[in-house]
Amino acid sequence: MSRTPPELARLVELVHPGLARMRDVLRRQVAESSPAVSDMTEHVGRFQGKQLRGALVLLVGEATGNTTDEHPSVAAIVELIHMATLVHDDILDGAKVRRRVACVNERWDNQVAVLLGDFLYARAFSLSTDLSSRLCSKLLAETTRRLCVGEIDQSARRYDFELPQSTYEAICAAKTASLYAAACELGARYPGGNEELGREMSAFGHEIGLAFQIVDDCLDVAGDEATVGKSIGTDVEDGKVTLPVLRTYAVGDERLRAEIRRVYTQPELQQRARVLREVCDLGPGLEYAHERARELVESARGRLHRLPPSSARDALDGIAAFTLQRNW
Amino acid sequence: MSRTPPELARLVELVHPGLARMRDVLRRQVAESSPAVSDMTEHVGRFQGKQLRGALVLLVGEATGNTTDEHPSVAAIVELIHMATLVHDDILDGAKVRRRVACVNERWDNQVAVLLGDFLYARAFSLSTDLSSRLCSKLLAETTRRLCVGEIDQSARRYDFELPQSTYEAICAAKTASLYAAACELGARYPGGNEELGREMSAFGHEIGLAFQIVDDCLDVAGDEATVGKSIGTDVEDGKVTLPVLRTYAVGDERLRAEIRRVYTQPELQQRARVLREVCDLGPGLEYAHERARELVESARGRLHRLPPSSARDALDGIAAFTLQRNW
Repeated sequence: MSRTPPELARLVELVHPGLARMRDVLRRQVAESSPAVSDMTEHVGRFQGKQLRGALVLLVGEATGNTTDEHPSVAAIVELIHMATLVHDDILDGAKVRRRVACVNERWDNQVAVLLGDFLYARAFSLSTDLSSRLCSKLLAETTRRLCVGEIDQSARRYDFELPQSTYEAICAAKTASLYAAACELGARYPGGNEELGREMSAFGHEIGLAFQIVDDCLDVAGDEATVGKSIGTDVEDGKVTLPVLRTYAVGDERLRAEIRRVYTQPELQQRARVLREVCDLGPGLEYAHERARELVESARGRLHRLPPSSARDALDGIAAFTLQRNW
Repeated sequence: MSRTPPELARLVELVHPGLARMRDVLRRQVAESSPAVSDMTEHVGRFQGKQLRGALVLLVGEATGNTTDEHPSVAAIVELIHMATLVHDDILDGAKVRRRVACVNERWDNQVAVLLGDFLYARAFSLSTDLSSRLCSKLLAETTRRLCVGEIDQSARRYDFELPQSTYEAICAAKTASLYAAACELGARYPGGNEELGREMSAFGHEIGLAFQIVDDCLDVAGDEATVGKSIGTDVEDGKVTLPVLRTYAVGDERLRAEIRRVYTQPELQQRARVLREVCDLGPGLEYAHERARELVESARGRLHRLPPSSARDALDGIAAFTLQRNW
């Protein structure tokens, strides 16, 4: 099952052979002789998504003239780590289990999801230790640590309506942008050397990853479930105060602030995101967040001028632009 | 907090300087500049336990004349992986959350435990990529995969009263003994070479790890909570059919088998392990399991004759013997 939007599919078409090899590697890595495990990993397809991070490894490799036979494996490792984070994101905490009893499927119960995510992480690290260079292991182990720290920090700052924008961005950088940055850096550098170009491409990945997260946060609070194609409003539900809300809160008066706090915290309130949109005009906050995402994408696109013209560079430019237009 | 029994502490005293360095490495690895993370990792001490796996890396290194400056770091990596598995073992599934609402501490809620475990795994892999040799990364990534597969297989075979002993042992080998085996192999081989001695020490670790698990399974079904010092009876509660029960079932008549199935599955039954001991004599099953553990430990001790006499070899012999006597 692939959820790749047609426009994005066109952009990554250029590295189609590499993507096909990446998917072969993924299939082999996820396969397991244990029937109990393969029974689970068959369902892992639903976590595969757009495979944008893997495509970035290949496209940046192409655009920087740094393609190796191992790039598809590096791309697969990046995707395995991303899949592991998605599987672990599915873990429900005790409160949610109690609230959403109906959703808790015995087959996909928490312990299974923990083990499946651990299995995917282990596969990723195991595969990375088979590569000719240690750069991939080193960079991705460190990135995985940052992903976890970002998630933990985010969890610790729930219901913090006065979170500084810089802290919000640092959390998004760790939990989301760091894997984009690592994918782009590995594309440019693997198996080694090219440190300056690696830093530039890492910054490109960081900026589009951060923009991606900001747009995602806007969609979650304001998007239309049918268009976005996934459940929305979960940030408000989970107490995550994201940029459009932080901005609305920062510029609002005390009455508005009290309303926002109430919508986030009043027990038993249904459809919090919808109620939030009713009690306050999120428009300026959303516009502010989108402007920040645009700024990041502009900066990212500017970095591409360091690369020689090529269709891979054009595709990276298109992906950066697409970050802002996406409605998936 | 250390739960090391005095007898075990005496056995590992020999590698005290290495253990002290291992604990330094652990402290540094678990420390994190993020306040939210360090707040969590401060509590990780309760997962540190006996540090037997780390001690085995050092003792086997000593006994095989293969001590390097990096052995304490290798030992710390093994312990970080063990701690990560313990943290993830603490994840409750939906059913248990519903059953044990009172136990679910907001601070130690599922999502936090998932992220903390992931953080420890990431730290372990990150540290391993800084070592001079890739052997540790390679062996432990593969071992982590086996740990996960073992846990998944175990979960899939719950309530399987006709599980062959060979399958039970294969599951225990993957979920428990594989990390003992890896610790001993790394002790003998790190940073590389010494393959034959590595295989021998891996087999030593496998056998004492398997014996350890069998004795643990006996304690869980028959032990006394005050002596064992941790909650017991959880295997019966969770539907895990372990060797003493498998044996009792295999040699029992149909009436007894029906009773065992009932005790495991009857809804709302309290203190299942105690009821199990009341409805059937587990004595012969326990004796059979202990005999199997003794056989494994004998074989493990035999392997030590391959090593020259030394106090480290004596300590390994003592640890193997202690596996059978332990009542923690």
